[in-house]
Amino acid sequence: MQTLNANRVRATPAGLQARSRARVCRVQAAKDGKTVVIGLAADSGCGKSTFMRRMTSIFGGSAKPPAGGNPDSNTLISDMTTVICLDDYHCLDRKGRAEKGVTALAPEAQNFDLMYEQVKAMKEGKAADKPIYNHVTGALDAPEKIESPNILVIEGLHPFYDERVRDLLDFKVYLDISDEIKFAWKIQRDMAERGHSLDSIKKSIEARKPDFDAYIDPQKKHADMIIQVLPTQLVPDDEGKILRVRLIQKEGKKLFDPVYLFDEGSTISWIPCGRKLTCSFPGIKFYYGPDTWYGEDVSVLEMDGQFDKLEELIYVESHLSNTSAKFYGEITQQMLKNSSFPGSNNGTGLLQTIIGLKVREVYERITEKEVVPVS
Amino acid sequence: MQTLNANRVRATPAGLQARSRARVCRVQAAKDGKTVVIGLAADSGCGKSTFMRRMTSIFGGSAKPPAGGNPDSNTLISDMTTVICLDDYHCLDRKGRAEKGVTALAPEAQNFDLMYEQVKAMKEGKAADKPIYNHVTGALDAPEKIESPNILVIEGLHPFYDERVRDLLDFKVYLDISDEIKFAWKIQRDMAERGHSLDSIKKSIEARKPDFDAYIDPQKKHADMIIQVLPTQLVPDDEGKILRVRLIQKEGKKLFDPVYLFDEGSTISWIPCGRKLTCSFPGIKFYYGPDTWYGEDVSVLEMDGQFDKLEELIYVESHLSNTSAKFYGEITQQMLKNSSFPGSNNGTGLLQTIIGLKVREVYERITEKEVVPVS
Repeated sequence: MQTLNANRVRATPAGLQARSRARVCRVQAAKDGKTVVIGLAADSGCGKSTFMRRMTSIFGGSAKPPAGGNPDSNTLISDMTTVICLDDYHCLDRKGRAEKGVTALAPEAQNFDLMYEQVKAMKEGKAADKPIYNHVTGALDAPEKIESPNILVIEGLHPFYDERVRDLLDFKVYLDISDEIKFAWKIQRDMAERGHSLDSIKKSIEARKPDFDAYIDPQKKHADMIIQVLPTQLVPDDEGKILRVRLIQKEGKKLFDPVYLFDEGSTISWIPCGRKLTCSFPGIKFYYGPDTWYGEDVSVLEMDGQFDKLEELIYVESHLSNTSAKFYGEITQQMLKNSSFPGSNNGTGLLQTIIGLKVREVYERITEKEVVPVS
Repeated sequence: MQTLNANRVRATPAGLQARSRARVCRVQAAKDGKTVVIGLAADSGCGKSTFMRRMTSIFGGSAKPPAGGNPDSNTLISDMTTVICLDDYHCLDRKGRAEKGVTALAPEAQNFDLMYEQVKAMKEGKAADKPIYNHVTGALDAPEKIESPNILVIEGLHPFYDERVRDLLDFKVYLDISDEIKFAWKIQRDMAERGHSLDSIKKSIEARKPDFDAYIDPQKKHADMIIQVLPTQLVPDDEGKILRVRLIQKEGKKLFDPVYLFDEGSTISWIPCGRKLTCSFPGIKFYYGPDTWYGEDVSVLEMDGQFDKLEELIYVESHLSNTSAKFYGEITQQMLKNSSFPGSNNGTGLLQTIIGLKVREVYERITEKEVVPVS
């Protein structure tokens, strides 16, 4: 892995914050102690794993569980990134939660002290013997040793809940799926793929909702970027097939620049030219503009509708600025490469890809190293 | 005047259609026989004279009546342009119209044969002995001799009514003022400046309306560009103080390219960034998009609201393309130069200035000569 890292990362003057420096270290460097920590918060079944695959794809290499370890490990390791699932920090296993009458969403079921200690250790370059929550058995398995990676992603229900853990995060992403869409997706997955009944899906969502609203949802105010997934506004009563997806971006952060459409700071709605972008009914509509998010300045980039021909995305990409793409068309190239992933024809894929590029930007600004783009 | 023309116009490879030619005549040329004819249609009191002043300003020099002629002449001559008023082609004077019971808007009151003959003669480089309709006396005065200019503008109620005259026109502009705004402007002019009563103004508008709708309004389908002036949509019931002004531009014409905002062919609404453009309530909103106009493809550029600081118009101008400006900021410079003209803080001034630049573009494409911009 160290060798691969050396191929992907190099210290160069193009490290974005390093541009103004007169002298920059040119040593070929693998993991050198600086670990960038990314938090990804979302409910289960909300596209976290697709998001992760898009992000990993930008850094190159495939993501695999630790070699020779527990086959039920939740960890995914690629050349530059290690993704750990915060379910591993459950202090109550399935049996324990049942006994105490708490859900997996409740803070009492999480070991925030251990989460903090181990994320801190990995951020400082040390390995951690992280527990494994076995999603199959519902029990806590023997720990696995996780080396400190270039980029540590902690994903799960509570990445921003504990203030100490939150303060370790260099970039915070929240996937905010509206109730209507969450319901549509659960039906798709649990009914079609797992044979659950509509009634049992409804009941399961309703049972989770109080704890979700109490403990998970409030974390989104801390995020640097939020992907909101909503029903389309292009047609009424679409039942969650067409999505309106919004990227909410905090303004004024040092580690990344928000993406904008046409003119930074303006409020713009854009229906792309039909001659340049094939759109069958009900078309595509973009929006960009300033807003506030829990009292903080944000800008919002929104896409409603879906692409007919993904290769034409280059036309949309050419009107976006501050995307952190390293060459003309990098977003389109990523989307085409991963076109089999869910959401590739709509705003979830586009905005997830943009966040992936932002993760790279954050990494480069912190480490002052350049990540060589993957082709 | 010939000398001045020679200063303003030169034959160069920059004549837009001439760019691809290998050899271009470089002779310094004044009026050389090719006269470009522009038609401007509008009701009285609809801003024709302001429009003319903005257009003339782009070509340089001040517009004056023919030297030593009838003091009640309606003709205005500047270095490159001669503007004639089509009221001069009334075949019935005020007395005659009263006897026959027809309005000045009726085709029976116009001498279209003479209009055609004389416009054709001037287009062919010949002088014309044009009648003068005396607006003070309401009578037809002795003719005045009009030399063939570089640019002949015929303005009035019926420039596109007669097919023969219409076919002589190289570029057709229609000022389309909505009834609400026409009423607000008439009140402003006739009540405040001329002491008419509100009731008499209403009656005069109502009396004109049937003939206006029958003979004047239908001409707008022939125009290449239409300026529509409507009440604002930013606030309800504004009483015509704030204007929504639309520039409707025919697509696919050889002699000019339609202006667009951000992306040609797209549909865009734009509320400019508050940090870059000072806007007090209710702000400014732009719109651009494709549409149809009497079955023909057009694109529409719209501005609703007004500028607080005219010099910041450069920010808006920088997002417009195909303006036919010859240097960065020419529109803003023109607007600042003429900031005392009515409508300088709203879309009428901006879009009139853009049409002025389009007239220059049409002139250059026909004559293959370059007009030196006026500073």
